[in-house]
Amino acid sequence: MRYNRAMTTLIKNALVIPMTEREKTQEASILIQDGIIRGIGSGYTEADEIIDASGMIAMPSFINAHIHLAMVLMRNYKDTAENLQDWLSEIFPIEDKLQDDDIYWASLLGAAELIDSGCTAFADMYFYAWNTVRAARSAGIRGIIGQTLFGDGAETRKRLSETVPIIDDAIGGSDMFRLDAAPHSIYTCTAETYEEAARWTAERGSMLHTHLSETRKEVLDSEREFGNRPAEYLERLGVLSVPCYLAHSVHINEAEMDILSSHERLSVVHCPSSNMKLASGAAPVKEYRERGINAALGTDGASSNNNLSMIKEMNAAAMLATISTLTPSAARPYDILEMATIRGARALGLDDRIGTIEAGKDADIVLINANDVNMTPMNDPFSAIVFSADRKNIDTVFCRGRKLKEKGQLLTIDREEAMRKTKECWNGILRR
Amino acid sequence: MRYNRAMTTLIKNALVIPMTEREKTQEASILIQDGIIRGIGSGYTEADEIIDASGMIAMPSFINAHIHLAMVLMRNYKDTAENLQDWLSEIFPIEDKLQDDDIYWASLLGAAELIDSGCTAFADMYFYAWNTVRAARSAGIRGIIGQTLFGDGAETRKRLSETVPIIDDAIGGSDMFRLDAAPHSIYTCTAETYEEAARWTAERGSMLHTHLSETRKEVLDSEREFGNRPAEYLERLGVLSVPCYLAHSVHINEAEMDILSSHERLSVVHCPSSNMKLASGAAPVKEYRERGINAALGTDGASSNNNLSMIKEMNAAAMLATISTLTPSAARPYDILEMATIRGARALGLDDRIGTIEAGKDADIVLINANDVNMTPMNDPFSAIVFSADRKNIDTVFCRGRKLKEKGQLLTIDREEAMRKTKECWNGILRR
Repeated sequence: MRYNRAMTTLIKNALVIPMTEREKTQEASILIQDGIIRGIGSGYTEADEIIDASGMIAMPSFINAHIHLAMVLMRNYKDTAENLQDWLSEIFPIEDKLQDDDIYWASLLGAAELIDSGCTAFADMYFYAWNTVRAARSAGIRGIIGQTLFGDGAETRKRLSETVPIIDDAIGGSDMFRLDAAPHSIYTCTAETYEEAARWTAERGSMLHTHLSETRKEVLDSEREFGNRPAEYLERLGVLSVPCYLAHSVHINEAEMDILSSHERLSVVHCPSSNMKLASGAAPVKEYRERGINAALGTDGASSNNNLSMIKEMNAAAMLATISTLTPSAARPYDILEMATIRGARALGLDDRIGTIEAGKDADIVLINANDVNMTPMNDPFSAIVFSADRKNIDTVFCRGRKLKEKGQLLTIDREEAMRKTKECWNGILRR
Repeated sequence: MRYNRAMTTLIKNALVIPMTEREKTQEASILIQDGIIRGIGSGYTEADEIIDASGMIAMPSFINAHIHLAMVLMRNYKDTAENLQDWLSEIFPIEDKLQDDDIYWASLLGAAELIDSGCTAFADMYFYAWNTVRAARSAGIRGIIGQTLFGDGAETRKRLSETVPIIDDAIGGSDMFRLDAAPHSIYTCTAETYEEAARWTAERGSMLHTHLSETRKEVLDSEREFGNRPAEYLERLGVLSVPCYLAHSVHINEAEMDILSSHERLSVVHCPSSNMKLASGAAPVKEYRERGINAALGTDGASSNNNLSMIKEMNAAAMLATISTLTPSAARPYDILEMATIRGARALGLDDRIGTIEAGKDADIVLINANDVNMTPMNDPFSAIVFSADRKNIDTVFCRGRKLKEKGQLLTIDREEAMRKTKECWNGILRR
């Protein structure tokens, strides 16, 4: 560790949005020690380091609850397909060629983009994930690592037995990481794979991450092939009874809403940019909130977004909720902020440690500089973050008290190297 | 003039997107002299100033074809109304309190936001517009200034006779500005006001700027009150026969498409963020293109967006076109770039001078730095600009050869002053 965790840091003069109580703001200081938030209030005056956050908003850093981090490789690559299936047919042949270095450097570049836009925790689903663990550790962010599973039960048992030890070794007992099972989807995995994944998840006490009901085609195929809609099918397999988070969940009918709301440790992860870009549809986020189904927010991969920016994703979520329902109150700015913070933490089983600013929680904090031309006047701070802010306003980012970005500069990643190496890897893949 | 316009500038090593030919890119240098593009090619080596644009995209700077510049005052102010009418009922009482200084400083701050995101020309519709002219001149950008008209014919004649001389005086013969007539909408102006505006426009040889068919309510009210849909009504009044650009144009049926396509110097201005945010609907941009109706792009005011960023607006346009049609080919990235450049120029009658990079046109150019974490790898440059780029990638901005932004810094505006003064004005308005 190159930084002294026992040091105290005091963030002064910020407008704090703790995300503990609806639309609460507080002009207060935040005291951080040993990576933990020690208190929020006005009485603090001394610390080893004092940060003057005048003109800034302090809020929990963002949680990206569905991502394929290393897919930054395919950013803007053949990305104007007519639908998900056509696009996947361009992507899958590329993925067959990936190697360790590709995943490491692309994950590091992806981590740089996450930090740059205020995010310090992500739930990944991809291949050779030990490289992603190494990259995220080097970047100083949290990773919930999904071991992607495809195909039948035999393939799944082989993959789990071969890769889990390697990923566990890369994690090395760090509580900044967790390994989850990530069966890709009902159209790429057999029932047995899902059952194996659920069994492994339960035994291990981790969670299960999968794509669900992303497109109408998936629903129609499911009805034809399994005689059930996707959520009904996974319920029948027992998969939804383990703690899980279901990416996309765009096409969910009333009966499926009943199923989802019956599982306490089940969340959906809304991916509005990807769903718009691939013409998948608009997830019923208003119904999720009304039914008490926890909805988090994710960017999906950079190849179908084409960014990993949660600040941009919040804007997309607000816009999509309104235009798809023609009801601005379908998702208020504060609702969107919840999806990007505490609801993300809850989805990933991390809500006891991150997702709000309160004493005892880890200091995962973003300082948003509202003293910029695009946020002046600020007026409503919730609207300002969701509708006006962009990456340039992300001034300072802490993860567990460690500064990863300061005054707009990335501190833990050599961005020039990450860009150069990723480009080299990508050119290598195209030549393979 | 504080800069030497006779000086030559050479932009070297850029990836040039001239916007003259579909999906054309060119690795070339651009020679600028006297504010004019003298040539694009590889033979240039000498100039008074040489800019190394390695890793950058050079393209025409953006044209924001519908804006209420000084409404940056109301950014994020009571902006979560349920629809346009409810929101306007919050905004109109504020507008009654506006004074010259409010408009000047807010326009200057708005101009800063435009330049910061790569835009150098805008079509405004607002009040006390001589202040907006002064601010835009000080910023160094082009302004098509719409004199907003409300109410009946008597009010319109009074407003035109009183304000036109003041605005003309502020413009002072500069060809960086033009004054257009801007009757607000069919629900705030009488038929006589539209007729007066059209007559004034024809006499003056300028253009007419209005809101049209923004909401379903407007269409229903129009059918009830005028016995016609909005475009039919304006056609009947003869308004569409003068050169004009129609902001929003969301709810346009087949018969109205026929009307719009019958006028050669008529354009629509798509405002996707505002239309999503206020739940107005999705304009039929695919049909506009197929019917040969020129569609430009605008941000609308910062109070219903809540930015003035054309780079963000292009993203919104691409996303909305896809999700509203469930067809990604409804608006390809190149189509969107056209809307933000040459189609914007055409809408405002400026296509002989700006909107493309070609010899003889004014040097209105933006350099987009693709060497950043959010644009690496770049792969398809058109997708990269529309889906990945943000304000931070806008490195350098020229308007008529004059540098307004360089290496991310604004050169013509004191941004701290513009922010401070605008905040002071806004607080003053709230106290009035």
